[in-house]
Amino acid sequence: MVFSRLTAALCFCILAASPVLAASGQTGASTALRAADSGWANVFSAKNLTASVDYVDAAGAVLAPGAPRATGHAAIRKLFAGLFALPDLRLMWHASTAYVAQSREIGYTTGAYHMSYRVKGKTLADRGKYVTVWKHESDGSWKVLLDIFNSDLAAGS
Amino acid sequence: MVFSRLTAALCFCILAASPVLAASGQTGASTALRAADSGWANVFSAKNLTASVDYVDAAGAVLAPGAPRATGHAAIRKLFAGLFALPDLRLMWHASTAYVAQSREIGYTTGAYHMSYRVKGKTLADRGKYVTVWKHESDGSWKVLLDIFNSDLAAGS
Repeated sequence: MVFSRLTAALCFCILAASPVLAASGQTGASTALRAADSGWANVFSAKNLTASVDYVDAAGAVLAPGAPRATGHAAIRKLFAGLFALPDLRLMWHASTAYVAQSREIGYTTGAYHMSYRVKGKTLADRGKYVTVWKHESDGSWKVLLDIFNSDLAAGS
Repeated sequence: MVFSRLTAALCFCILAASPVLAASGQTGASTALRAADSGWANVFSAKNLTASVDYVDAAGAVLAPGAPRATGHAAIRKLFAGLFALPDLRLMWHASTAYVAQSREIGYTTGAYHMSYRVKGKTLADRGKYVTVWKHESDGSWKVLLDIFNSDLAAGS
């Protein structure tokens, strides 16, 4: 019994060390992470405040331009609520890369966003880029540890 | 010989699976990553252009506010050269967190920066936050895969 457990552990180690299987696992894992990024973008685009906050780990932080680091759900909820209150806000992002560590407990996505909203009757448009660091939770879901973004446009443009 | 190699591999797997040893390994690895973050900050602060660019992986990208994503050494060199040309530039950052994946091939740092420079005889100060995603190179060094930052200050402040 002990021997069979050791053999199983050894086989697992050999399998885990196989470049081909590791690459295949990476593809499946990165697809799941890309889906999490897209799922977050969808609830955010729909201005679903509770669902948007729930994508963030309890100890996660959102690093928005023009504001201090917002850490934890209460601060992030306040930040998102302020953003969602912008008149006629439209916001979407898409990941160009999703990478999961071989050990699977963290990963990151990066990509581009575009948004628009109205100020004094005029539509302002912005586009930019982001990096999100994700944590693989014990229930199998991915949650945001860090999210940071900035504009491609020069200030005042 | 084969058996001894298998035994060694198995012992390695058991050791690697030990929470205590894994935590110890994480501490050592995160210390090395924190040192890489600090080393990059030091050459950047000294405006050493070549050394600053060399901290970035050949396929790495720097995501600066007010500019498109700069990917690869040529684009990043141009971006950094523009920043270093700011009169009386002073810039430093410090990581508050450094995390290395258990599989060791990637990690991330996050922290705060502060900078100042002169415009038309007036000193402008800025402070903000950043996230850097790092790749563990085959030579054991850490190089930047993604670096992104933004200001804590409201635009125009």
